Amino acid sequence: MKTIIRIMRPDDANIAGNVHGGTILKMIEEAGVIISTRHCNRQNEFTSESKTGFSDWLQHPCYHLCSCSTAEERCVAVLARVERTDFLSPMSIGEVAHVSAEITYTSKHSVEVQVNVMAENILTGVKRLTNRATLWYVALSMENVNKVVEVPHIQYGSPEDQEEGRKRYEAQKLDRIETKQRSEDIILPAINVDRQRKEPYTVGYSQSSLIHLVGPSDCALHNFVQGGVTMKLMDEVAGIVAARHCKTNIVTASVDAINFHQKIEKGSVITVSGRMTFTSNRSMEIEVFVDVDHVLGRPKEKASAVTAFFTYVSLDKEGKALPIPMLKTQTEDEKRRFEEGKTRYLNTKAKRMAGAQKDQ
Amino acid sequence: MKTIIRIMRPDDANIAGNVHGGTILKMIEEAGVIISTRHCNRQNEFTSESKTGFSDWLQHPCYHLCSCSTAEERCVAVLARVERTDFLSPMSIGEVAHVSAEITYTSKHSVEVQVNVMAENILTGVKRLTNRATLWYVALSMENVNKVVEVPHIQYGSPEDQEEGRKRYEAQKLDRIETKQRSEDIILPAINVDRQRKEPYTVGYSQSSLIHLVGPSDCALHNFVQGGVTMKLMDEVAGIVAARHCKTNIVTASVDAINFHQKIEKGSVITVSGRMTFTSNRSMEIEVFVDVDHVLGRPKEKASAVTAFFTYVSLDKEGKALPIPMLKTQTEDEKRRFEEGKTRYLNTKAKRMAGAQKDQ
Amino acid sequence: MKTIIRIMRPDDANIAGNVHGGTILKMIEEAGVIISTRHCNRQNEFTSESKTGFSDWLQHPCYHLCSCSTAEERCVAVLARVERTDFLSPMSIGEVAHVSAEITYTSKHSVEVQVNVMAENILTGVKRLTNRATLWYVALSMENVNKVVEVPHIQYGSPEDQEEGRKRYEAQKLDRIETKQRSEDIILPAINVDRQRKEPYTVGYSQSSLIHLVGPSDCALHNFVQGGVTMKLMDEVAGIVAARHCKTNIVTASVDAINFHQKIEKGSVITVSGRMTFTSNRSMEIEVFVDVDHVLGRPKEKASAVTAFFTYVSLDKEGKALPIPMLKTQTEDEKRRFEEGKTRYLNTKAKRMAGAQKDQ
Repeated sequence: MKTIIRIMRPDDANIAGNVHGGTILKMIEEAGVIISTRHCNRQNEFTSESKTGFSDWLQHPCYHLCSCSTAEERCVAVLARVERTDFLSPMSIGEVAHVSAEITYTSKHSVEVQVNVMAENILTGVKRLTNRATLWYVALSMENVNKVVEVPHIQYGSPEDQEEGRKRYEAQKLDRIETKQRSEDIILPAINVDRQRKEPYTVGYSQSSLIHLVGPSDCALHNFVQGGVTMKLMDEVAGIVAARHCKTNIVTASVDAINFHQKIEKGSVITVSGRMTFTSNRSMEIEVFVDVDHVLGRPKEKASAVTAFFTYVSLDKEGKALPIPMLKTQTEDEKRRFEEGKTRYLNTKAKRMAGAQKDQ
Repeated sequence: MKTIIRIMRPDDANIAGNVHGGTILKMIEEAGVIISTRHCNRQNEFTSESKTGFSDWLQHPCYHLCSCSTAEERCVAVLARVERTDFLSPMSIGEVAHVSAEITYTSKHSVEVQVNVMAENILTGVKRLTNRATLWYVALSMENVNKVVEVPHIQYGSPEDQEEGRKRYEAQKLDRIETKQRSEDIILPAINVDRQRKEPYTVGYSQSSLIHLVGPSDCALHNFVQGGVTMKLMDEVAGIVAARHCKTNIVTASVDAINFHQKIEKGSVITVSGRMTFTSNRSMEIEVFVDVDHVLGRPKEKASAVTAFFTYVSLDKEGKALPIPMLKTQTEDEKRRFEEGKTRYLNTKAKRMAGAQKDQ
Repeated sequence: MKTIIRIMRPDDANIAGNVHGGTILKMIEEAGVIISTRHCNRQNEFTSESKTGFSDWLQHPCYHLCSCSTAEERCVAVLARVERTDFLSPMSIGEVAHVSAEITYTSKHSVEVQVNVMAENILTGVKRLTNRATLWYVALSMENVNKVVEVPHIQYGSPEDQEEGRKRYEAQKLDRIETKQRSEDIILPAINVDRQRKEPYTVGYSQSSLIHLVGPSDCALHNFVQGGVTMKLMDEVAGIVAARHCKTNIVTASVDAINFHQKIEKGSVITVSGRMTFTSNRSMEIEVFVDVDHVLGRPKEKASAVTAFFTYVSLDKEGKALPIPMLKTQTEDEKRRFEEGKTRYLNTKAKRMAGAQKDQ
């Protein structure tokens, strides 16, 4: 298990000093991509080690089939999915973030990584858990990024651990397939930037959109955007929507599961749009859409857009949650989305209460 | 005259390796703000020096008479205007940029700074001029950023130099006043992000918009965005509009004069929108709008929007200008703007030819 | 001699507003790499000039004899060593750093660069020296980065200057060889991130480790990390160790000589670990280790680890040094390292006093 450590800087935070959720999501994904890429490339070592007749590597498929062409095949792990993530406590400028990652399950072609984020106040020595996230990566060949590569297995502490992992794998697979089908039907919202004429607290008043030209630093290991970069942009738009709605200091409270169906190439333009879908007394739900524009002339394929729901809360100076002005829905679609958001909100609340009871 | 030197990195450039015009504009403005802030704080020293004819610290009146009221008044230079700037030759990753600034004129409240940018290939030793820019700064009090402070005078090489400077000062002042009045009438364009349904080569197809949350590092010397940061964002949007239109490698060729009428505070959200107005055989003109949203609840005053025209060209691998697909105008407004762009294009061309003849 | 100038921004500094030593080390190295790469590519011109006594391009041998093999051989300077560096005075946000570099000695394959750093408060006009550093670069061929290239000679002011330079060259060479042998025996410390159970003021309590994925902008001139990037990461870890130990505002006071024995490729993961070795009444010494992990599966060669000692002090709001809690050593190794640190501390103190006496 390896840990990314980084001091939170002014640019990582809003002006109240709370670190952006997107900064944390980006660090989480960086830890994930390092551990899973490293694991997937252990392939060869395993092969050679297994010659000694020792250890786990006997189980490696490449050992038995010596013609296995993948021995030399270098690969990179690419983010396929992030499970729902809660932000338990806001981090501040000057605190040290500890992001530690562990591989907890491997299927034939994918790796599950669990990540813990701790915030440490190095002046007081106090450390607290701020996030726990689960990410799924697939391994792609370096020579041919359209080719999915086999992943070496890990050893489990017990057969139960493996069985639990398999169940998580099946569940996310189902959700991924379902989302992919749904996202093909998505019509991206037209975001009108002329907010001046809109009425406060309506959907149109706070909706926002940004574009980002994918640069080299967004793509460290290959020529595709790292998932964490996309998530950071998504959180940025969601945060602006939330701040425009309530005009107070806001922080990310949670992010629903996000599926990545499409690789985004260097030089593309990403459009990220957000609109508010639901407000409870103390929270706002923002739907975020990602669309990719392959600027440099590549024929535009039907893109599976990335979408996700971000939940934000507003905090006063003591960190207490403030009441949120209710969203004014105007069209039929807005009213329907509000009701759907309410259902998600109540489900999450019920699950949390069930979890709390189980913990007792 | 002082020089900023920096190696151009992958993040400063597009994927063809050409440094973004915005990166260069930001460096130009950083050089300008340093030299003019330094100059404006020489107030007392300079004033006293010019009175006594001695350049010694001991001669400073405040050194002896501590009641001098301006002695304690520190000020910062804030960008008010950038004159039209041509990008003579694209810079590349790995080259070293040399940005040198010089104060060439001072009025009662403003400073004119002329900046030269050279690109040096440190491998071949070849150095070439890539830009020449003229910036106007005003000095604001550190204690009260709404108070304009008097600027110490510079010494001119000759009375003609001073007279030439005065003419430039009057010309830019007129243009500033005129633009300010015009910009108060500007209705920001509604940018529809649902490009998929637009026809290629129309205005709607390539128009783009981004939002940026102003962070601490955008504001190093005070709590307001540095002009260079805004210009970098403007160039970013213009570049995306240009690339979407012609789908080839594009570079900034020139920027028309930009006036800054409004301070943008830390924590604000900047919306930058761009739309194509005109195409010639080998160039594209993009109009860029900046709008500020004081997210954190401050009552929104009538903002004077910043607007500017960026001209882009498209280059092939040998750096030769490629033909540009003609812009398809659809509405009456679009046709009118196309004609206005054509006038600007022909005027610039005529001036350049007149200049070339004069040089001969 | 050329100068890099840059405004210090919030992200360059800690929360007390003091610029990180690592930011300064990175700027120093950027100045060094520019001047030495430029010099090494003047090879032919300089060689011919010094022979003929003419500084004209026409005299260049390659101008006439196109077969000259080295004429086309471009090279880049790569950091091999930084001598011990003292931070004389902390820099603040909003100040302007001036980093000027000069080549002071050349051996057959290496270049010595001396760098001065001044901090300028552009509001008060006060300028002060904050650092003086000496760096050694070797020139590597652009075509084959494993090939060391010959370096053109410089002209010395006097034979004494050259002789002094030669002595510095021999001294650093000895130290480099010795360190390289030592570093091959180094066993990287296992950094246990579970600090909560550790007792305050022990070595285990403050030791820290970070990982960094090498991105394109860490490597501007070639595909290898610039030395300045590595030094910045080292300072970051050392600063975290120091802050954890004394829980007050800390700043870098000095860095011992650092030798770079290994090139670090783009896409690698760097692990930087730090542990406290010694405390005096007013200072802390932290040992920092750099280890490289070629994530993308390259068979791991036995790496010569980079190690260095950083000294930190703690400052109160007036910039006065605070007392440091004594380090609690527990194991035999920790006690031995403490004694070694004490020896280094006393040696440095003695040298400084000797220097001060000489200056009088």
